[in-house]
Amino acid sequence: MNYRSRQKRGQAPTFFYAPADQIDETSLTLSGQEAKHATTVCRLAKGSQMTVTDGAGNAYDCEITGVKRGVVHADIVRAHRRLGEPFATVTLAVGVGKPATVDWIVEKGVELGVSSIVPIRCANSVSGLSDSAAAKRRLSRWRRLALGAMKQSLRSVRPDVHEIMSIDDARTLIDDHQMSFIADPDGQPLSIAAHSHVQMTKSLLFVGPEAGFTNDECARLIDAGAVPFSLGARRLRAETAAIVSLTLLLKELDEL
Amino acid sequence: MNYRSRQKRGQAPTFFYAPADQIDETSLTLSGQEAKHATTVCRLAKGSQMTVTDGAGNAYDCEITGVKRGVVHADIVRAHRRLGEPFATVTLAVGVGKPATVDWIVEKGVELGVSSIVPIRCANSVSGLSDSAAAKRRLSRWRRLALGAMKQSLRSVRPDVHEIMSIDDARTLIDDHQMSFIADPDGQPLSIAAHSHVQMTKSLLFVGPEAGFTNDECARLIDAGAVPFSLGARRLRAETAAIVSLTLLLKELDEL
Repeated sequence: MNYRSRQKRGQAPTFFYAPADQIDETSLTLSGQEAKHATTVCRLAKGSQMTVTDGAGNAYDCEITGVKRGVVHADIVRAHRRLGEPFATVTLAVGVGKPATVDWIVEKGVELGVSSIVPIRCANSVSGLSDSAAAKRRLSRWRRLALGAMKQSLRSVRPDVHEIMSIDDARTLIDDHQMSFIADPDGQPLSIAAHSHVQMTKSLLFVGPEAGFTNDECARLIDAGAVPFSLGARRLRAETAAIVSLTLLLKELDEL
Repeated sequence: MNYRSRQKRGQAPTFFYAPADQIDETSLTLSGQEAKHATTVCRLAKGSQMTVTDGAGNAYDCEITGVKRGVVHADIVRAHRRLGEPFATVTLAVGVGKPATVDWIVEKGVELGVSSIVPIRCANSVSGLSDSAAAKRRLSRWRRLALGAMKQSLRSVRPDVHEIMSIDDARTLIDDHQMSFIADPDGQPLSIAAHSHVQMTKSLLFVGPEAGFTNDECARLIDAGAVPFSLGARRLRAETAAIVSLTLLLKELDEL
């Protein structure tokens, strides 16, 4: 339903993206696909209003002054800092399964407000991740999807998508976060599991691939400090478990 | 990650379905696609254990006694009542948008535990719903998806998928439920919006199509008693908003 569509009616249906080197104090340009999207799909032209973000927390309300040779030129009317961004910093560490599933989790994770995404190679990951060409293709696809979801959800920070790492490397991330969580049928509801941790400005959430983390992987993550929490009595598919976990965590962090 | 996969390891990876007329006190049969799925995909054979549900709240642990002419015969070892079912009764009323979006919402809604699904024809619905052949095709697809999701999520009740109804008819459902909710950017967080309603064993959740409910539709639903609640500061796509709303409601109902 494009939640917020009514509130945002009259605004451009998306944010546009320009890298910092195309932005100065009073004006900016859109080029390439962004310019094409603005002029062809959204039919913006001289005099149109739009909001552009640099993906680093800056967003600019602009007025288009002209379109020349496929480049959109605009004057900055107003600057915002961290528009659409959550207060909480959430890292989503996701076991790499089938392409469609991970793509979808990346997109929804960014929409919901994660700060960064860490793809993990684990025992039940799909094969082919050691072929670095295939892994690179998937990584650049996730980064494109993260950019698109940032614009679509009206965020101003483009979440990092890290290179695929081993579960042992991902495990060391637990020490860098105030709280880490992992869905586990034996865990308690998240609101109870996280109860004593009022200050969780920086948290880490592990979600497994389709076939799950192995018992051993789960035990090692929990041993390193990840708190197990339950997702209710029904069995959820990987992508459902990912989004439900993230929703519950963001609710606990007062972002929902 | 197939949440619960570790807990359920060793069990069949899905429930099977048999209509009540194929089940008697001590034995049952699987036929058609169900029998094929059991024998070909899951490679079950004489002596294999499986769990079969009638979709009406009964589930049976069985042992296969034989497979003859594409029909699986099994002895009932143990019967369960409402296995995998939530205590709360939640009806999901969803504005009919693009096929892939509604299909997905139906599947995820059933996984998460809804009791019934009401597809709504609203101002921003896709066209073609008045062609009754197309509407019938979509309805039977949703019913198939609901059956599949029931089996996959290890539930024993097959949620009803009602025929597509007008938003005015859907509006009258509000009176049949203890609480009704609708996502709205002007609403409060659900935990606050629902705060005073401890007993909500029967609730109704409205989720819009891609382009949202119109202001007028929203106002009429709220006027009839639907409580508006917010989904945070970021703009969510239709399918994300649907699953996030449902997750928050189920959390409020202590199902998550």
